[in-house]
Amino acid sequence: MRNIKITIQYDGRNYNGSQIQPKVNTIQNEIEVALTTLLRKKTDITLAGRTDSGVHAYGQVANFSTDTPIPTSRIKRALNNLLPNDIYVLDVTEVSVDFHARFSKSNKTYIYKIFISDEKNIFSNFYYYNIHEYLNVEEMKKASLHLIGSHDFKSFMSSGSNAFTTVRDIYSITIKENLVEKDFSSILCDSGKIVTIEVQGNGFLYNMVRIIAGTLIEVGLGKIDSSKIPVIIDGHDRKLAGHIAPPNGLYLKEILYTEEKY
Amino acid sequence: MRNIKITIQYDGRNYNGSQIQPKVNTIQNEIEVALTTLLRKKTDITLAGRTDSGVHAYGQVANFSTDTPIPTSRIKRALNNLLPNDIYVLDVTEVSVDFHARFSKSNKTYIYKIFISDEKNIFSNFYYYNIHEYLNVEEMKKASLHLIGSHDFKSFMSSGSNAFTTVRDIYSITIKENLVEKDFSSILCDSGKIVTIEVQGNGFLYNMVRIIAGTLIEVGLGKIDSSKIPVIIDGHDRKLAGHIAPPNGLYLKEILYTEEKY
Repeated sequence: MRNIKITIQYDGRNYNGSQIQPKVNTIQNEIEVALTTLLRKKTDITLAGRTDSGVHAYGQVANFSTDTPIPTSRIKRALNNLLPNDIYVLDVTEVSVDFHARFSKSNKTYIYKIFISDEKNIFSNFYYYNIHEYLNVEEMKKASLHLIGSHDFKSFMSSGSNAFTTVRDIYSITIKENLVEKDFSSILCDSGKIVTIEVQGNGFLYNMVRIIAGTLIEVGLGKIDSSKIPVIIDGHDRKLAGHIAPPNGLYLKEILYTEEKY
Repeated sequence: MRNIKITIQYDGRNYNGSQIQPKVNTIQNEIEVALTTLLRKKTDITLAGRTDSGVHAYGQVANFSTDTPIPTSRIKRALNNLLPNDIYVLDVTEVSVDFHARFSKSNKTYIYKIFISDEKNIFSNFYYYNIHEYLNVEEMKKASLHLIGSHDFKSFMSSGSNAFTTVRDIYSITIKENLVEKDFSSILCDSGKIVTIEVQGNGFLYNMVRIIAGTLIEVGLGKIDSSKIPVIIDGHDRKLAGHIAPPNGLYLKEILYTEEKY
């Protein structure tokens, strides 16, 4: 059997999340339907990371086993012909049998996008968290420093997860702000400010990036003092952290597998 | 009775066009449902311009008659609370009874957006015409000059229209190109080039802007010589012009009513 790794880009707007569920439309379902058609054999995939309804991906990873002799370049082309136009396979590679998209060690990077504008902007609605208030980005950066490192992130986890441990390592958090002018070449076509929060770590608890984003936004709004982050972490209580930022601003950017052997 | 003019922004991605049709989801249907709920009385609107399935608007205009005493600022707020989050009412104004969104004289501006990238970009799919070939923008500009003025645009009209005359005045065509770098603050998050074609006129035939865009793109690709545009116009034959560019790149940008009395 061959073990095939695929890297996938998707616009999650019209999907009920990445993982297969009965009777709703998911990213996993679309890919498995396409693969099953292509390989003429029921084929299941293993996704690296769960993304909720409305969450996007620039580089989701999955793997599947197959005995097909079809070369990887042809699998890529054929899959993309079968997939709907909001899912695109960027790369198809044959990997060692040891590779497991979910359990092999990796660094994951998520990016959370915020658009600050005076009025509601419908073109940002599905791709940014659209807010209408000033954010103090310097305070958000100060707060983010407390999150870096190995911590028990229980305060930043939604219930409904069965994680074995709530300790995770965050390697970096990069917050950038970018003024945008009204510009008809952009989809937004509105003036405002874009703030992006990029978080890299060895893994994330259920909704952890969205709760980090929501907490940092509350710091930016002056509702939470940046110095309070250690207290929130040490409390191990979800109620201490900020709100969960909406899914539409979240993108799974990249997954880098850290073992050489694949 | 009061005559109310509304200016509407919408993301047409998930709609079957602007005009009401039985059993499919349209922009007009959503607005009439919201108005009927708000005013507690079946309320129909008149839309200024028809936009097909997938076409977007930064500034569509409509009007409706009502005997409600609700002030316009409250109508705006209440309508936006009732509408889905891909339709937004920018402005609500009371106008003279003579005003008719469709038949009052106006200048309409449409903008057509093209994204040129090496690979398919799923985040551009619903907001740009995503192509993967070089466009000679200088030749497109030369070609566009022949379209400006008062012409019989029969060659640039899809069948299925019952226009009284196929003569229209185009006041301007502005073509811009804009190199974009890979940038995670943008939805596209890809390097490439954006080309926008902005067309202003006193009115447009069915699919006219999309056929103009498709024809100019074929000029940019070297498939049609820019000097051939007068021959295409004078032939009065749809088969002479280029392909119809897809709806997802088209935006109704603005409608300016040219009579003072409203």
